[in-house]
Amino acid sequence: MSKLLKDIREAIVKTGLKDGMTISFHHHMRNGDHVLNMVLSEIAALGIKDITVNASSVFDVHEPIIEHIKNGVVTGIECNYMGAKVGRAICEGILEKPVVFRTHGGRPSDLEKGSSHIDVAFIAAPTSDDMGNCTGKIGKSACGAIGYAFADAMNADKVVIVTDNLVPYPLHEYSISEVYADYVVSVDEIGDPNGIVSGTTKITRDPVGLRMAEYAAKVIDASGLLKDGFSLQTGAGGATLAAAKFIKEMMLKREIKGSFGMGGITAYMVDMLEAGCFKSLIDVQCFDLDAVRSLRDDPRHMEVSATHYAGVSGKSAAVDSLDAVLLGATQVDVNFNVNVHTDSNGYIMGGSGGHSDTAAGSKLCIIIAPLTRARLPLVVDRCMTISTPGKDVDVVVTQRGIAVNTKYGKNAELKEKLIKAGLPVCEIEDLKDRAEKLSGVPAPVKLTDKVVARVLYRDGSEIDKIYAVK
Amino acid sequence: MSKLLKDIREAIVKTGLKDGMTISFHHHMRNGDHVLNMVLSEIAALGIKDITVNASSVFDVHEPIIEHIKNGVVTGIECNYMGAKVGRAICEGILEKPVVFRTHGGRPSDLEKGSSHIDVAFIAAPTSDDMGNCTGKIGKSACGAIGYAFADAMNADKVVIVTDNLVPYPLHEYSISEVYADYVVSVDEIGDPNGIVSGTTKITRDPVGLRMAEYAAKVIDASGLLKDGFSLQTGAGGATLAAAKFIKEMMLKREIKGSFGMGGITAYMVDMLEAGCFKSLIDVQCFDLDAVRSLRDDPRHMEVSATHYAGVSGKSAAVDSLDAVLLGATQVDVNFNVNVHTDSNGYIMGGSGGHSDTAAGSKLCIIIAPLTRARLPLVVDRCMTISTPGKDVDVVVTQRGIAVNTKYGKNAELKEKLIKAGLPVCEIEDLKDRAEKLSGVPAPVKLTDKVVARVLYRDGSEIDKIYAVK
Repeated sequence: MSKLLKDIREAIVKTGLKDGMTISFHHHMRNGDHVLNMVLSEIAALGIKDITVNASSVFDVHEPIIEHIKNGVVTGIECNYMGAKVGRAICEGILEKPVVFRTHGGRPSDLEKGSSHIDVAFIAAPTSDDMGNCTGKIGKSACGAIGYAFADAMNADKVVIVTDNLVPYPLHEYSISEVYADYVVSVDEIGDPNGIVSGTTKITRDPVGLRMAEYAAKVIDASGLLKDGFSLQTGAGGATLAAAKFIKEMMLKREIKGSFGMGGITAYMVDMLEAGCFKSLIDVQCFDLDAVRSLRDDPRHMEVSATHYAGVSGKSAAVDSLDAVLLGATQVDVNFNVNVHTDSNGYIMGGSGGHSDTAAGSKLCIIIAPLTRARLPLVVDRCMTISTPGKDVDVVVTQRGIAVNTKYGKNAELKEKLIKAGLPVCEIEDLKDRAEKLSGVPAPVKLTDKVVARVLYRDGSEIDKIYAVK
Repeated sequence: MSKLLKDIREAIVKTGLKDGMTISFHHHMRNGDHVLNMVLSEIAALGIKDITVNASSVFDVHEPIIEHIKNGVVTGIECNYMGAKVGRAICEGILEKPVVFRTHGGRPSDLEKGSSHIDVAFIAAPTSDDMGNCTGKIGKSACGAIGYAFADAMNADKVVIVTDNLVPYPLHEYSISEVYADYVVSVDEIGDPNGIVSGTTKITRDPVGLRMAEYAAKVIDASGLLKDGFSLQTGAGGATLAAAKFIKEMMLKREIKGSFGMGGITAYMVDMLEAGCFKSLIDVQCFDLDAVRSLRDDPRHMEVSATHYAGVSGKSAAVDSLDAVLLGATQVDVNFNVNVHTDSNGYIMGGSGGHSDTAAGSKLCIIIAPLTRARLPLVVDRCMTISTPGKDVDVVVTQRGIAVNTKYGKNAELKEKLIKAGLPVCEIEDLKDRAEKLSGVPAPVKLTDKVVARVLYRDGSEIDKIYAVK
């Protein structure tokens, strides 16, 4: 018995994939992924139409999907994040059905609850045996954690493992078990590991970014959370990475023994682990190759499923134990709602990812963003798209002031602490005024009434809609 | 947020356990387990009645369950194995409802398919954090793998982790994720790790056992399976362990690089791994403390769930890739059916465990047993209890002859190979005659028509019934 098939085409045929079905992909190869394009190309060649693509994220490398939409091969997209290239096309209205955006925790939970269904999952696996025991930790295309693929493997009707490093049975350090795999396909290359680092940045050297980072670190310090057992998630943006560096310095200086670092993991978090700031890393995806190496070699660096990381269908998730998270924003509104889906021109260029999951779970959710970008104000009356609801946001840090969110009956004490620490605390409306003084009040973006995307909150409810740009 | 409760009593109350419900336990602490008794004692003290206990195995240490049955606290038992003490009481008819016996693969599969349901699972965990990330690999009561508990955690309505080694969050080397845990209880002692080794034996020094072991090793050799990539499961009986030793010597001498050893893992399998006979061990439970150490320290030694090991609800299980398995028997009949449930007096003293799972999955299933035991013949016309169907058994090895099962249209070629190798091949009827010549034809055991147990095959269908002894 072996599950090995000749090629992707044979796998598509064997799974019984037909018009109207939903297929899925994970995004751990990020902008280096080849599998989504390879599979769609074969599906198109087989004449199959009306496919919904449920990918944990869609990157610029997946631009060929635009052509498949135009040809009727792809008629639906569901994802947690969408890069600007495909996002622009979506906002121009090329897809009849609205894109469904979920969060990194909501996606697996919807699969587990049955409110989302996958007919065939195609799982890019940097190493697999012929029965489908697979991992992202080793192999020429090693991407580290494959935490977003667990729910696909566990819940899709059919599961195809696509690997470029087929090893003899049994692969003993598997992340996903053969229990879930129907077929295995060996290909030349599932992706380019160098594409994994796309979207992440180096620690900022920009004085604006450094000031925000320093403020954010001081907010955490003033909050009282920075003590033994401290846990932290940062994104991969330049200012949040700089904030992590400031926090690391404080922790080392004061000999604070933190608990865990979490998230998409970067070299900076690995560095904090190795420096003794944390006793472990909780890793659902690796943002760079240092993280891949650490996950492979350091047992304190642990891979988790998206459900374990941030789901709502389980009895708990790691985000529920998180102290502080540093997150970005394209817009924040006066009710502290945050937009990470659309840019100021109304075009899709992102998505929740784990934004609203970590905001909801953490004790302290800090948004770091410059007061203006490209002459557009950060703070507005109402976000063009609400990605994360204001009730889950605690502090907005800009280079020109820090707003504490006391609008939902909490954080009064936190606000006092920040003021006492000498931080430039102001109201969110003050930030709006200061931003508008710098950049003026922008002309409203012209949108049509055509819904191009629905934004689902982590519990599966609709939190907002995105409209086509005029 | 923490899931930590004060004690087992509080956990029972919080889970909402009430009359008529089903609770579950795993058996990795084997005859050293304290948790089943502690929980039943609290349930009794709370006045809860009519409880079904679904334990992956019931050992002699669980003898107090007899009193709970008499008091109406426990009215049902489901298990894969039952030791002689409780087994005797069951066969005397103390329980109204028949015991339900499953296999190690059938139990998790029935839970996954929904044909078996657990209201509250109590999971003995040698180490856990306060959110329920837990493992058996470390802690003062380390028992190694906890593979049988995975399905309980994943499928029970409520899950209580009972530990005697509570560690700070997050436990990074968890086996079962917090996703599945409702509550955590810290107790003084979940068990006595020395009890883990109960039921396992040392390599036999008995000449009869050694002859059977040598024959079994030669059968594997003659079958042609003993080459690079070879995989093996043995039980923990003296003769099968001796067979493993012979196989090891052959592999080392001929420089055969095997694939994996599997099963309940003993020190003998660890020794074969370390000697280079296998490249990995697939471990669902540890039979001794050497196995516990190896699982903890050697990444080639991997813990798997019971579903991964032997289930039928997944897309495949490791047993499907198994070459040879060496199994025991209390009786074999002329149709090659095997009994491992009842002794020759009709009393329950065992159960399928992984017997029929590995028999079905493996390429070569060898039963090793002495021709007579306590003056009773091994081979009979019809087993008192059919545990494993004859169609899945390939060879019966005794000290007085080897019967190859050609009754189901297979193994003709194997029979030729064994004859060519000079092995004492005979018919199963010959073994019956020889046994009866040695021990006489035993008087039939007197049974009543009261069904005390139903034996389910791995697919959930009933394969046999066990009746009360007169």
